[in-house]
Amino acid sequence: MTKGKTFIISGPSGVGKSTVLHALLERRKELYFSVSATTRPRRAGEEDGVHYHFLDVDTFREWIAKDEFLEYAEYVGNFYGTPKRFVDEAMDQGRDVILDIEVQGANQVTGKRPETVTIFIAPPSWTELERRLTERGTDSAEKIQKRLLRAKVEFQTAHTYDYFVINDTVENAVGELEAILTAEHCKPQERMEIINGNN
Amino acid sequence: MTKGKTFIISGPSGVGKSTVLHALLERRKELYFSVSATTRPRRAGEEDGVHYHFLDVDTFREWIAKDEFLEYAEYVGNFYGTPKRFVDEAMDQGRDVILDIEVQGANQVTGKRPETVTIFIAPPSWTELERRLTERGTDSAEKIQKRLLRAKVEFQTAHTYDYFVINDTVENAVGELEAILTAEHCKPQERMEIINGNN
Repeated sequence: MTKGKTFIISGPSGVGKSTVLHALLERRKELYFSVSATTRPRRAGEEDGVHYHFLDVDTFREWIAKDEFLEYAEYVGNFYGTPKRFVDEAMDQGRDVILDIEVQGANQVTGKRPETVTIFIAPPSWTELERRLTERGTDSAEKIQKRLLRAKVEFQTAHTYDYFVINDTVENAVGELEAILTAEHCKPQERMEIINGNN
Repeated sequence: MTKGKTFIISGPSGVGKSTVLHALLERRKELYFSVSATTRPRRAGEEDGVHYHFLDVDTFREWIAKDEFLEYAEYVGNFYGTPKRFVDEAMDQGRDVILDIEVQGANQVTGKRPETVTIFIAPPSWTELERRLTERGTDSAEKIQKRLLRAKVEFQTAHTYDYFVINDTVENAVGELEAILTAEHCKPQERMEIINGNN
């Protein structure tokens, strides 16, 4: 059995990443979607191990000390991180792993594991991203401009990503993601058994 | 419009490359399948510009002198080569180009154009390749062993290929080829307009 691979999927606020990921996971049931660990309090309706792995601060710090995270960050006073253990278990079972993380977290992961594949979900245009943020109706005009600026800055630092998937339609974006997953398993390092003639 | 890309597809005798390529071209009508130039005499039923571009030896040498070939070779007294012109015309029209060439030709092309994507069609196993060669019924047992040896040698020099597609079934192999074509167009250099925010 071939080991699974890890794919990082990043994208700016409003690009529609959640919808695309949801559709991808529906279509590829064998994928493991990594569940983050956090120290923020559990909210009503949230399940431990499903929405997050809920940890107290001491445990989180202990996991950091034991190098148990692929990446972690502090955000508004709470810790968030990607536990190595579940990722490795899934990969050992031959499952591909999807990490939904930001650009800075992605850099931490690829620093430790350069073989990780990085995918950035991009809007078809900035005008379209602005339109989607406005349509969502959750942010003030000022906040939308801030989000747009942040997206542009993030985009500039994302030039090292392996792939850019354009979310013009969910159907196209999921099609491109599936193609990337399939193509990455055709890389020579994935097929060494055949290349070396051990079969 | 995005420029097309060139994909080299190689594979050992008996692997079923022609069948796979035929199925791929049926499914992706927009692909341009490169027609080779040759100095060998035209056979009954062969059309100039369809099966080959038929050239006399002087013209072929002139094209070599003018650097009109992406790659060329002499085989049993005849020249064979891939003319640049038709490849470039198709790419300028935004069409992806498929070159069906051997490992040595592939090395010539990637030496000139490192951005060319190389795909090797491999059998699921050597036993299966031997079975297919035997089933074809065109070669003697001795010739089959020669072909197998050649395939193994070729395979060793093919470790620099970008992708290995396993032809276990035509359906799977074509699926992997299509995924590679799609994924390659998600590479950052293909999406610079969006990355640079010029839209």
